Order: sequence, then C-alpha cells, then structure tokens
Amino acid sequence: MPAITLYDLIGADDRRFSTHCWRVRPALAHKNLPFETIPVPFTGIRSIRDGAYPTVPVIHDGDIWVHDSWVIAEYLEATYPDQPSLFGGAAGKALTGFVRHWWQGGMHLLAMSMILKDIHDHLTPEDKTYFSQSREKRFGQPLAEIQTGREYRVVTFRERLQPLRQLLDDQPFLGGAESLYADYLVMGTFIWARKMSSFALILPDDPVHAWMNRCLDLHDGLARQGPGFDW
Amino acid sequence: MPAITLYDLIGADDRRFSTHCWRVRPALAHKNLPFETIPVPFTGIRSIRDGAYPTVPVIHDGDIWVHDSWVIAEYLEATYPDQPSLFGGAAGKALTGFVRHWWQGGMHLLAMSMILKDIHDHLTPEDKTYFSQSREKRFGQPLAEIQTGREYRVVTFRERLQPLRQLLDDQPFLGGAESLYADYLVMGTFIWARKMSSFALILPDDPVHAWMNRCLDLHDGLARQGPGFDW
Repeated sequence: MPAITLYDLIGADDRRFSTHCWRVRPALAHKNLPFETIPVPFTGIRSIRDGAYPTVPVIHDGDIWVHDSWVIAEYLEATYPDQPSLFGGAAGKALTGFVRHWWQGGMHLLAMSMILKDIHDHLTPEDKTYFSQSREKRFGQPLAEIQTGREYRVVTFRERLQPLRQLLDDQPFLGGAESLYADYLVMGTFIWARKMSSFALILPDDPVHAWMNRCLDLHDGLARQGPGFDW
Repeated sequence: MPAITLYDLIGADDRRFSTHCWRVRPALAHKNLPFETIPVPFTGIRSIRDGAYPTVPVIHDGDIWVHDSWVIAEYLEATYPDQPSLFGGAAGKALTGFVRHWWQGGMHLLAMSMILKDIHDHLTPEDKTYFSQSREKRFGQPLAEIQTGREYRVVTFRERLQPLRQLLDDQPFLGGAESLYADYLVMGTFIWARKMSSFALILPDDPVHAWMNRCLDLHDGLARQGPGFDW
C-alpha cells in the first residue's frame, strides 16, 4: 500500500504542533495506514495544491485529497472499514460528535488563551509575523496580554475537565477499554500544548494526566517524538 | 412476557417526576418491554423490598431486582440483546458515560438549584416535610432562597448547553439519527422539570427545545402524559 501523505504544520526545531494534525496522525496509526508527512509552516499552507486549502491537515491518498481533521476521520473510516474502527459504529460516531463540540467550543479555546504567546515563540521565523498579526487581530490584544492571568484561568480549565476525570474513573479511555477517535480529538490539544509551552495545563496527580500519558504511549509513543515540554 | 415492574416516584396529582425513573421508562419502551409502575412517594421508598433501596428507580423483572438507573440500563442491554440497543455497542456505551458525567455533575445540579421549591410545592403532602428538611440540610438554605436568582443562573444553564446545541445542528438526537440512552439520560432532567415547575429552563427558539419536543414525542408521547407544565 503506498503511503498516505499528511501535510503537517511545523514550528521551530521541526516541532509538529498542530492540534488538528495530531487528531489525524494517531487516526492513521490506529488504522494501520503507512503515512509520510510533508512539513509546512502557516505561511506555506497556500502552496498546497495551488492554494486549495486554508488550513491543515490535508491528506493525499492516491488520487484523493481530503481536508479538515473531522472529514479526514470520516474518510478513513469509510475507506478502510476492515481496519480498526475510529468511532465504534454509528452510535459511537454520533456521541464522538458530542465530545467534539464539548471540547472544541470551550476547552480548546480556553487552552489557547493560555499559551498563545508561547506558540508564537516556538514558530519558524517566517511564521512569527503572520501569527502575531492574525491572532492579535482575532483576539483584539497583544499576544503577551492574552496569556496574562493564565494561572487563574487554568484552574477553571482543570475544573471543566471534571466530566472526563469522572469518566476515567470508570474506564481507561474515552473510547472505553481502548482508545478511539474521541481520545485523539481531545488529546490533540494536550500534544499541541506540550510541543509549544512549558505551562502545565494539568497536574501530575490528576487522573486526566494519567490518561494523557496513556495516550502518549499509544502507537509506539508517536506523540512523544520530537522536541517539546514534559509536564 | 410478564410485565416488568418499575417503582416510580410520585408527586401530587399523580405526577411521575423522577429524573432517574424517566431515564428507565423510555429505556423500557425502547426495548419494547411491557412494564407497569408502582407509585411511591419519597417517604415510601423504604417500603420497597423491606427497605433494600435508598432511592428509586428499582425494577422487578421476574425474580430479579435491579436498582439505579445506570445499572438498570446495563441490565436491560445485557438481558435483552435482541431488542433495540440502548447504547449502540461498546464505544457507544463508553461515550454515553461521558455524556452522563457531563450532565449529572454540573447541569442537572444547576437545574435543581432553580426549581427546588417548585418541586416541593408539587409533592404529596406526606413528602413535603421530609423533602424540605433533607434538601435544606443538603444545600444549607431554605428552599425558596435556593431558587433565588434563577433568572440569572438559567442564562448560564443555557450557555452550557452549547455542545448539545451544536451537536443538534449535525443530527436530530444525541444518539444520531435515532434516540439512544444518552438522549434519555439528558431528557430525564427536562421531563422532571416540566412535571414540577413552570420555570422554563430553555426557550422555544432554542434547537435544544426542538430536540426536547422530539424526545417528548417518542414512544407514543410517553413523557407528555399526566399533569405538568408546557414550556
């Protein structure tokens, strides 16, 4: 089987840090699909397929291009049904959608507000100006100010992890006995943060931290590779 | 097949209002299992099976007694595998667990803080003293004061429904195209509130309201039966 190509966001020192690429990468490994990555900085995304896509991840599988981490997961599930399932059936997929909205709507954005300047500081030189200008416009503040007060906001972040924490008292993964796409979806944020920031979003005595470590061990420690921070 | 017996909490005017009983009742209907209910007030729960259970729901299926809405759902799924699934497989069950903790930990308790006095006012006479004493002890305030400020807290409640609201933009039920136990689990709170309080937890223009109405229509309008409030 020819390898699938994943266009993968890159920071300084070959840091592969994109949350959404880190949803796709374990999904490819989960499906036992060989893949190779092509690193692109933010300012290189428009070079992919003549500017067809505003964001990564994009995958290229034979003649087929697919964009957007959720659409890619759907594509992989439909195209490789004989490989281990990412969703565990129709109900599993429907409820993964709930986890997705719970996470993406509030939690990921809250995490972003705590490490935006750190992300900037670990980007490739050519991306720094683009990033600070676009993010300061979006948030209406200088990057350093957006991060201000994170030692208070992180308490809220940890409190809001409570449903996940309680679930992990019943089972080792969101997906149950084994990890599923629902795990990769949430985990993408923790990998992204660990690649770019020394600021610990969770503490070592938290059951969510133990789950994070279980996820980091998956697929031969895929998410532990490369530079980053260890918290 | 002999009918299953459900011990069902009762308020004034035969109001069947228990959140947890309203998780079991649609689960029984979903499984196409005939059932009959035995109404019990709070102060009658200790009369069930010589005081074996501190709360309802309790079901009695032939020789088997089962207590606790989640355990009952697991029992029904395992005992009647040829009937429609409540979870949609192992992954569906694992992720239903996430919805359960999300809902029970924060949302249901927040809803309770808004209608506790209204619940009291619609109980059977013999339950009122028990209820006000036990709840005032638990919350450390008179019932009427606990409800105070609910017009502000309901805004928070509606905001926190956002992941569900977004999901319902993709699909009609938490379970996907059809309702599953995850829907009944959340819906139990809305049925309970509609039986006991005129205070609208959600507004008619909310997609969550449309979902609530779809759930109320399920199983021949099971949850629309009996006295209550229409919001």
